[in-house]
Amino acid sequence: MEARLKAWVVFDGRVKFGDGRAELLDLVGELGSLKKAVAKIGMSYRNAWGYLRELEEAAGFKLVERRPGGGPDGGTQLTAKGRQFLARYRRFRQELDQIVQQSFGRSFPRR
Amino acid sequence: MEARLKAWVVFDGRVKFGDGRAELLDLVGELGSLKKAVAKIGMSYRNAWGYLRELEEAAGFKLVERRPGGGPDGGTQLTAKGRQFLARYRRFRQELDQIVQQSFGRSFPRR
Repeated sequence: MEARLKAWVVFDGRVKFGDGRAELLDLVGELGSLKKAVAKIGMSYRNAWGYLRELEEAAGFKLVERRPGGGPDGGTQLTAKGRQFLARYRRFRQELDQIVQQSFGRSFPRR
Repeated sequence: MEARLKAWVVFDGRVKFGDGRAELLDLVGELGSLKKAVAKIGMSYRNAWGYLRELEEAAGFKLVERRPGGGPDGGTQLTAKGRQFLARYRRFRQELDQIVQQSFGRSFPRR
Protein backbone atom coordinates (compact mmCIF):
# COMPACT_ATOMS: atom_id res chain seq x y z
CA MET A 1 0.00 0.00 0.00
CA GLU A 2 1.35 3.39 -0.95
CA ALA A 3 0.30 7.01 -1.46
CA ARG A 4 0.29 8.81 -4.79
CA LEU A 5 -0.61 12.35 -5.61
CA LYS A 6 -0.98 14.90 -8.33
CA ALA A 7 -0.64 18.56 -7.53
CA TRP A 8 -1.14 21.79 -9.40
CA VAL A 9 -0.72 25.47 -8.87
CA VAL A 10 -3.83 27.17 -10.23
CA PHE A 11 -3.78 30.71 -11.59
CA ASP A 12 -6.89 32.83 -11.61
CA GLY A 13 -9.00 29.81 -10.60
CA ARG A 14 -8.74 28.23 -14.05
CA VAL A 15 -5.24 27.71 -15.48
CA LYS A 16 -3.45 24.70 -14.00
CA PHE A 17 0.31 24.43 -13.79
CA GLY A 18 1.65 20.97 -12.93
CA ASP A 19 4.59 18.66 -13.53
CA GLY A 20 4.11 18.52 -17.33
CA ARG A 21 4.20 22.31 -17.72
CA ALA A 22 7.14 22.52 -15.32
CA GLU A 23 9.05 20.10 -17.53
CA LEU A 24 8.33 22.29 -20.57
CA LEU A 25 9.64 25.40 -18.82
CA ASP A 26 12.67 23.50 -17.51
CA LEU A 27 13.55 22.48 -21.04
CA VAL A 28 13.10 26.01 -22.38
CA GLY A 29 15.53 27.19 -19.71
CA GLU A 30 17.97 24.41 -20.52
CA LEU A 31 17.81 24.52 -24.32
CA GLY A 32 17.14 28.22 -24.83
CA SER A 33 14.52 27.38 -27.44
CA LEU A 34 10.81 26.63 -27.24
CA LYS A 35 11.02 24.81 -30.56
CA LYS A 36 13.66 22.39 -29.24
CA ALA A 37 11.82 22.03 -25.93
CA VAL A 38 8.51 20.99 -27.51
CA ALA A 39 10.31 18.60 -29.87
CA LYS A 40 11.79 16.81 -26.86
CA ILE A 41 8.41 16.51 -25.12
CA GLY A 42 6.39 15.69 -28.22
CA MET A 43 4.06 18.67 -27.84
CA SER A 44 3.13 20.86 -30.77
CA TYR A 45 4.78 24.29 -30.97
CA ARG A 46 1.41 25.90 -31.54
CA ASN A 47 -0.12 24.29 -28.43
CA ALA A 48 2.88 25.22 -26.32
CA TRP A 49 2.68 28.89 -27.33
CA GLY A 50 -1.06 28.93 -26.76
CA TYR A 51 -0.65 27.41 -23.34
CA LEU A 52 2.14 29.79 -22.33
CA ARG A 53 0.14 32.80 -23.47
CA GLU A 54 -2.91 31.63 -21.49
CA LEU A 55 -0.72 30.96 -18.45
CA GLU A 56 0.98 34.36 -18.59
CA GLU A 57 -2.35 36.08 -18.94
CA ALA A 58 -3.79 34.28 -15.88
CA ALA A 59 -0.57 34.69 -13.87
CA GLY A 60 -0.16 38.36 -14.72
CA PHE A 61 3.53 38.05 -15.54
CA LYS A 62 5.74 36.84 -18.38
CA LEU A 63 7.35 33.41 -17.97
CA VAL A 64 9.31 33.32 -21.24
CA GLU A 65 10.73 35.90 -23.62
CA ARG A 66 12.14 35.82 -27.15
CA ARG A 67 15.82 36.54 -27.27
CA PRO A 68 16.62 39.27 -29.78
CA GLY A 69 18.65 37.91 -32.68
CA GLY A 70 18.11 34.30 -31.69
CA GLY A 71 17.36 33.30 -35.25
CA PRO A 72 14.67 30.89 -36.42
CA ASP A 73 15.65 27.96 -34.18
CA GLY A 74 16.65 29.64 -30.98
CA GLY A 75 15.84 32.50 -28.88
CA THR A 76 13.26 31.72 -26.23
CA GLN A 77 14.42 32.05 -22.65
CA LEU A 78 12.82 32.10 -19.21
CA THR A 79 12.31 35.53 -17.70
CA ALA A 80 13.66 36.24 -14.21
CA LYS A 81 10.12 35.86 -12.86
CA GLY A 82 9.71 32.62 -14.80
CA ARG A 83 12.88 31.20 -13.23
CA GLN A 84 11.75 32.28 -9.79
CA PHE A 85 8.31 30.76 -10.25
CA LEU A 86 9.76 27.48 -11.51
CA ALA A 87 12.21 27.24 -8.59
CA ARG A 88 9.36 27.83 -6.14
CA TYR A 89 7.18 25.24 -7.86
CA ARG A 90 10.03 22.67 -7.66
CA ARG A 91 10.47 23.42 -3.97
CA PHE A 92 6.72 23.04 -3.38
CA ARG A 93 6.53 19.71 -5.23
CA GLN A 94 9.57 18.22 -3.53
CA GLU A 95 8.34 19.21 -0.10
CA LEU A 96 4.91 17.84 -0.95
CA ASP A 97 6.29 14.45 -1.97
CA GLN A 98 8.06 14.20 1.37
CA ILE A 99 5.20 15.27 3.59
CA VAL A 100 2.71 13.08 1.78
CA GLN A 101 4.79 10.03 2.63
CA GLN A 102 5.11 11.20 6.23
CA SER A 103 1.38 11.82 6.55
CA PHE A 104 0.62 8.47 4.94
CA GLY A 105 2.91 6.72 7.43
CA ARG A 106 1.15 8.41 10.35
CA SER A 107 -2.35 7.61 9.08
CA PHE A 108 -1.64 4.03 8.01
CA PRO A 109 0.75 2.66 10.64
CA ARG A 110 2.34 -0.65 9.74
CA ARG A 111 1.58 -3.58 11.97
CA MET B 1 -2.87 31.57 -7.09
CA GLU B 2 -3.73 28.46 -5.15
CA ALA B 3 -2.73 24.81 -4.76
CA ARG B 4 -4.89 21.84 -5.72
CA LEU B 5 -4.23 18.18 -5.36
CA LYS B 6 -5.55 14.72 -5.97
CA ALA B 7 -4.39 11.87 -3.81
CA TRP B 8 -4.85 8.13 -3.80
CA VAL B 9 -3.95 5.14 -1.73
CA VAL B 10 -2.74 2.44 -4.10
CA PHE B 11 -3.07 -1.26 -3.28
CA ASP B 12 -0.75 -3.78 -4.81
CA GLY B 13 0.69 -1.14 -7.15
CA ARG B 14 -2.42 -1.08 -9.32
CA VAL B 15 -5.76 -0.46 -7.58
CA LYS B 16 -6.34 3.18 -6.71
CA PHE B 17 -8.55 4.29 -3.83
CA GLY B 18 -9.42 8.00 -3.79
CA ASP B 19 -12.17 10.40 -2.79
CA GLY B 20 -14.79 8.88 -5.11
CA ARG B 21 -14.37 5.38 -3.69
CA ALA B 22 -14.29 6.77 -0.16
CA GLU B 23 -17.65 8.42 -0.80
CA LEU B 24 -19.07 5.09 -1.97
CA LEU B 25 -17.88 3.31 1.17
CA ASP B 26 -19.13 6.15 3.38
CA LEU B 27 -22.59 5.81 1.85
CA VAL B 28 -22.60 2.02 2.28
CA GLY B 29 -21.79 2.56 5.96
CA GLU B 30 -24.47 5.21 6.29
CA LEU B 31 -27.27 3.53 4.32
CA GLY B 32 -26.48 -0.12 5.06
CA SER B 33 -27.04 -0.96 1.39
CA LEU B 34 -24.78 -0.99 -1.64
CA LYS B 35 -27.83 -0.66 -3.89
CA LYS B 36 -28.94 2.56 -2.19
CA ALA B 37 -25.36 3.84 -2.08
CA VAL B 38 -24.77 3.45 -5.82
CA ALA B 39 -28.17 4.97 -6.60
CA LYS B 40 -27.14 8.10 -4.69
CA ILE B 41 -23.81 8.40 -6.53
CA GLY B 42 -25.13 7.44 -9.98
CA MET B 43 -22.77 4.46 -10.33
CA SER B 44 -24.00 1.11 -11.62
CA TYR B 45 -24.45 -1.67 -9.07
CA ARG B 46 -22.47 -4.02 -11.27
CA ASN B 47 -19.50 -1.63 -11.53
CA ALA B 48 -19.54 -0.99 -7.81
CA TRP B 49 -19.42 -4.71 -6.97
CA GLY B 50 -16.70 -5.28 -9.54
CA TYR B 51 -14.65 -2.45 -8.13
CA LEU B 52 -15.08 -3.58 -4.52
CA ARG B 53 -14.09 -7.13 -5.39
CA GLU B 54 -10.97 -5.91 -7.20
CA LEU B 55 -10.12 -3.62 -4.29
CA GLU B 56 -10.56 -6.35 -1.67
CA GLU B 57 -8.41 -8.72 -3.70
CA ALA B 58 -5.60 -6.17 -4.00
CA ALA B 59 -5.94 -5.05 -0.36
CA GLY B 60 -6.08 -8.59 1.01
CA PHE B 61 -9.02 -7.87 3.31
CA LYS B 62 -12.79 -7.48 3.09
CA LEU B 63 -14.17 -3.94 3.12
CA VAL B 64 -17.88 -4.79 2.94
CA GLU B 65 -20.02 -7.76 3.90
CA ARG B 66 -23.58 -8.85 3.17
CA ARG B 67 -25.81 -8.78 6.21
CA PRO B 68 -27.63 -12.08 6.64
CA GLY B 69 -31.38 -11.64 6.18
CA GLY B 70 -31.05 -8.13 4.82
CA GLY B 71 -33.54 -8.82 2.05
CA PRO B 72 -33.28 -7.68 -1.57
CA ASP B 73 -32.79 -3.96 -0.86
CA GLY B 74 -30.60 -3.97 2.19
CA GLY B 75 -27.90 -5.85 3.76
CA THR B 76 -24.44 -4.59 2.82
CA GLN B 77 -22.34 -3.18 5.61
CA LEU B 78 -18.74 -2.15 6.14
CA THR B 79 -16.55 -4.69 7.90
CA ALA B 80 -14.56 -3.62 10.98
CA LYS B 81 -11.44 -3.46 8.78
CA GLY B 82 -13.36 -1.48 6.18
CA ARG B 83 -14.38 1.08 8.81
CA GLN B 84 -10.84 1.30 10.11
CA PHE B 85 -9.41 1.77 6.63
CA LEU B 86 -11.95 4.47 5.77
CA ALA B 87 -11.25 6.37 9.01
CA ARG B 88 -7.51 6.26 8.29
CA TYR B 89 -8.05 7.41 4.72
CA ARG B 90 -10.14 10.37 5.95
CA ARG B 91 -7.44 11.29 8.43
CA PHE B 92 -4.80 11.09 5.71
CA ARG B 93 -6.78 13.26 3.29
CA GLN B 94 -7.65 15.91 5.85
CA GLU B 95 -4.07 16.17 7.04
CA LEU B 96 -2.91 16.34 3.44
CA ASP B 97 -5.23 19.23 2.60
CA GLN B 98 -3.82 21.17 5.53
CA ILE B 99 -0.15 20.52 4.90
CA VAL B 100 -0.46 21.23 1.19
CA GLN B 101 -1.72 24.71 1.96
CA GLN B 102 1.07 25.21 4.49
CA SER B 103 3.73 24.01 2.06
CA PHE B 104 2.27 26.18 -0.69
CA GLY B 105 2.40 29.22 1.59
CA ARG B 106 6.06 28.55 2.39
CA SER B 107 7.08 28.02 -1.24
CA PHE B 108 5.08 30.92 -2.69
CA PRO B 109 5.34 33.70 -0.13
CA ARG B 110 2.99 36.62 -0.75
CA ARG B 111 4.54 39.95 -1.41
